[in-house]
Amino acid sequence: MSEYHWDTKVTDVEPNKVMVRGYPIDDLMGKASFAQAIWLILMGELPDENLTKLLEVIFVSSIDHGASPPSCLAARTVASTGASLSASVAAGIMSINRHHGGAIEGCYLALHEGVEKANNGGLSFEDAADALLAEYKQNKKRVPGFGHRIHKADPRTARLFEACEEYGFVGDHQKMAQAFETSFEKSGKSLPLNVDGALGAVLGDLGVPPMMMNGFFMVSRVPGLLAHVYEEMTEMRPMRKIDPADYGYQGPPERHI
Amino acid sequence: MSEYHWDTKVTDVEPNKVMVRGYPIDDLMGKASFAQAIWLILMGELPDENLTKLLEVIFVSSIDHGASPPSCLAARTVASTGASLSASVAAGIMSINRHHGGAIEGCYLALHEGVEKANNGGLSFEDAADALLAEYKQNKKRVPGFGHRIHKADPRTARLFEACEEYGFVGDHQKMAQAFETSFEKSGKSLPLNVDGALGAVLGDLGVPPMMMNGFFMVSRVPGLLAHVYEEMTEMRPMRKIDPADYGYQGPPERHI
Amino acid sequence: MSEYHWDTKVTDVEPNKVMVRGYPIDDLMGKASFAQAIWLILMGELPDENLTKLLEVIFVSSIDHGASPPSCLAARTVASTGASLSASVAAGIMSINRHHGGAIEGCYLALHEGVEKANNGGLSFEDAADALLAEYKQNKKRVPGFGHRIHKADPRTARLFEACEEYGFVGDHQKMAQAFETSFEKSGKSLPLNVDGALGAVLGDLGVPPMMMNGFFMVSRVPGLLAHVYEEMTEMRPMRKIDPADYGYQGPPERHI
Amino acid sequence: MSEYHWDTKVTDVEPNKVMVRGYPIDDLMGKASFAQAIWLILMGELPDENLTKLLEVIFVSSIDHGASPPSCLAARTVASTGASLSASVAAGIMSINRHHGGAIEGCYLALHEGVEKANNGGLSFEDAADALLAEYKQNKKRVPGFGHRIHKADPRTARLFEACEEYGFVGDHQKMAQAFETSFEKSGKSLPLNVDGALGAVLGDLGVPPMMMNGFFMVSRVPGLLAHVYEEMTEMRPMRKIDPADYGYQGPPERHI
Repeated sequence: MSEYHWDTKVTDVEPNKVMVRGYPIDDLMGKASFAQAIWLILMGELPDENLTKLLEVIFVSSIDHGASPPSCLAARTVASTGASLSASVAAGIMSINRHHGGAIEGCYLALHEGVEKANNGGLSFEDAADALLAEYKQNKKRVPGFGHRIHKADPRTARLFEACEEYGFVGDHQKMAQAFETSFEKSGKSLPLNVDGALGAVLGDLGVPPMMMNGFFMVSRVPGLLAHVYEEMTEMRPMRKIDPADYGYQGPPERHI
Repeated sequence: MSEYHWDTKVTDVEPNKVMVRGYPIDDLMGKASFAQAIWLILMGELPDENLTKLLEVIFVSSIDHGASPPSCLAARTVASTGASLSASVAAGIMSINRHHGGAIEGCYLALHEGVEKANNGGLSFEDAADALLAEYKQNKKRVPGFGHRIHKADPRTARLFEACEEYGFVGDHQKMAQAFETSFEKSGKSLPLNVDGALGAVLGDLGVPPMMMNGFFMVSRVPGLLAHVYEEMTEMRPMRKIDPADYGYQGPPERHI
Repeated sequence: MSEYHWDTKVTDVEPNKVMVRGYPIDDLMGKASFAQAIWLILMGELPDENLTKLLEVIFVSSIDHGASPPSCLAARTVASTGASLSASVAAGIMSINRHHGGAIEGCYLALHEGVEKANNGGLSFEDAADALLAEYKQNKKRVPGFGHRIHKADPRTARLFEACEEYGFVGDHQKMAQAFETSFEKSGKSLPLNVDGALGAVLGDLGVPPMMMNGFFMVSRVPGLLAHVYEEMTEMRPMRKIDPADYGYQGPPERHI
Repeated sequence: MSEYHWDTKVTDVEPNKVMVRGYPIDDLMGKASFAQAIWLILMGELPDENLTKLLEVIFVSSIDHGASPPSCLAARTVASTGASLSASVAAGIMSINRHHGGAIEGCYLALHEGVEKANNGGLSFEDAADALLAEYKQNKKRVPGFGHRIHKADPRTARLFEACEEYGFVGDHQKMAQAFETSFEKSGKSLPLNVDGALGAVLGDLGVPPMMMNGFFMVSRVPGLLAHVYEEMTEMRPMRKIDPADYGYQGPPERHI
């Protein structure tokens, strides 16, 4: 062992053996779904049946949001120069930061402040929300995760909370998110929770560390970025000017499972 | 519509509506697993039940391979400088290229050459493999996807082919991969198929375009990269010298589902 | 020395000593200009006085080309998400590929083909150009580095060739570039050499390896990318839609040294 | 003009005209050195003769520091996977952050705090340094930019300050840096200013905005990263294990201008 020896807790690789958080990978292959393996490698333990169902919903929720998010535009722009698939997708990943995806963590932190205010001050969630949002307003601070450029009622938020109810995962941060919404409404401006905010609430209730929350968004969005990059590489003219707003949809018409 | 108007076939976003390849996303959330949604967005259609089972196996197979792959080392190195989560993961993605992950596509192309040789020349797969590998040898070309730095018998390859058999997906490229293995053995050097090669065979049999194959590997590996980056950011000294070989494993001991 | 010991020829670092290609860096600081040090580290030797003058012209020539190149748009898009300065600039660098900047290498390779055709066949440069371009036309191949989306007469090309003449660096590739221009004109379509093509000719005449040519463009463009990223971070609204064409200039009016 | 119209102050591009901060680029080519053009595009005005001399020293100072910095290791690791030149260099750039290069800004901020303490409190620089460093010690805060893993007396620091003296650029931040060094010595531990700290002092005295300081380091280091990436691509085995410490130098022996 040299002076630079170090240890990891993620995966053990020995000849003819790969063990993820202790589980032989060939044992996981077939016994664990991809969503379960993701939770295992990120959080250290396999999820139970109900959590698995919720995770599938969570990862599907952010798989794509069309061509206008900056991650998609950055990935397509890089792809249009003749970059490799991996460099193009990487440019998309690099765009997931404070202002894009980052509302997940930001919203969680505000919700957590609300939950602590309620618990420490013996307040109802509604009163804690009112008090906290008044403070935010006075300090001209925005609450991340509320309002959306396109959606008035984000269909993903409703579905996500419905799933939490169905599988038994309604926790304090989700309740506080709803208290925030009510509080905004009372003050006369409707600022509905968007999917980032909803994910912050749900991931917080699941005990995901704040710093890791954006990572869940990355995992979810990589397939979407890939689909856009592949379309750019195979169907678009190199070096075209990619208009960030003036584009349409020419794929399959609406259909249902 | 400006002169720069363009169209996408991936996702349609309208107020209060997000439709992935035509399916409302809130419909997919709960009805489709993450693996199913990934196949949908990359390939355009939802997979059936058996293909879904195989996809879960495929995505789990490459979720991580410890700290020595260059994608992990690049991601950890960037993370050690104080980079963001997204920039660190992006550096890992950027490392997935011809020599790392790329054997998936490279092996597929060689197998496809073999399949065409057999079909066009009226040869058995064994004879086509022998003839093709003789040509490769004469031209001093290596066949990607065979042999491994660490594993003599890659446990993921066996499990992957077993799953193909179980779910009914054994196709020509997989058969040709086995013909290649036999041919190598006959010529006196054992070069077992590694997981990259096996994925090339299986994805080829599933009709995934070669250029997209590395993308399946990226989707699968992002959670592993995240786990390593998070460990680096939270438990390691900034700017440490990251030895690419002299490291151990201190996570949970071997356990089974 | 471990089994992984390796050697570099770039820079030797010892306690209290840093030597670039053999020269102590504190010796270079003050005795060599930045352009000279760049040539030293990339090509191995310090340039003489005339080459130094030409290098200053070369590096200035590509320092920026406004906001429309994809490298600038990718860098600004990533910056608009709250990414770090380094991740944003990196996204710009990642956009310098075959279709953007890459014409430098591509044009050089075509010019080199022309020079070899002339030398091997005992042809004049004009005849070799005519013959080669006829072949390109027949095979529907474009010659990179000729024509420009905006400029009919790229002011940088003229100035670059003027400098080559002034400092004594007119070589075969530059002459062949002019033969190509003449040949295009004779065939009825005016396709003037752009700055990428001109750089390919000049760097080729200076003996820069083709694979490194794009690197000269990166060195030159990084300051421009930085200026755009800094402007985006300090003066623009996060997550704005960055129109790739509809933008104006509000900096200092035209002025001269 | 669409609703997304925007303006830049960096470069105006019109048919047959490119103007950087107002100067036609073909006017700059030959009249301005690369270092002068860099200052122009980053800071808005051309530097005078003495500042130009200092800038050449500054940009040369950080052009490379061998293979052990994480930016070099990240770039080489990505290059070893078969990535493009641009993706490899980009991975190096992405590694320039708070812990690598970032001491430039961090040191400036601490020095600036010292200068303000002196000015506001009517203290000598020495007394202000003593008081501030005592506070840092009490709060267990490190001062970035002092001490080095390899060098006890960084040769670049001495040369940089010498150049400032020669060209007339000794300012408050540089003086405060020297007051810090004296203060550390008096307290019994020798923590000499490293080149990052020295650059923070000098760039601060030149009026470079703190957020931009790391950008000067990027501009300076890109040629070094390129040299390493090119060496990796052309002389090293793909996917080799890149030891971050056990490497030697086999380039030209020490030589002088």
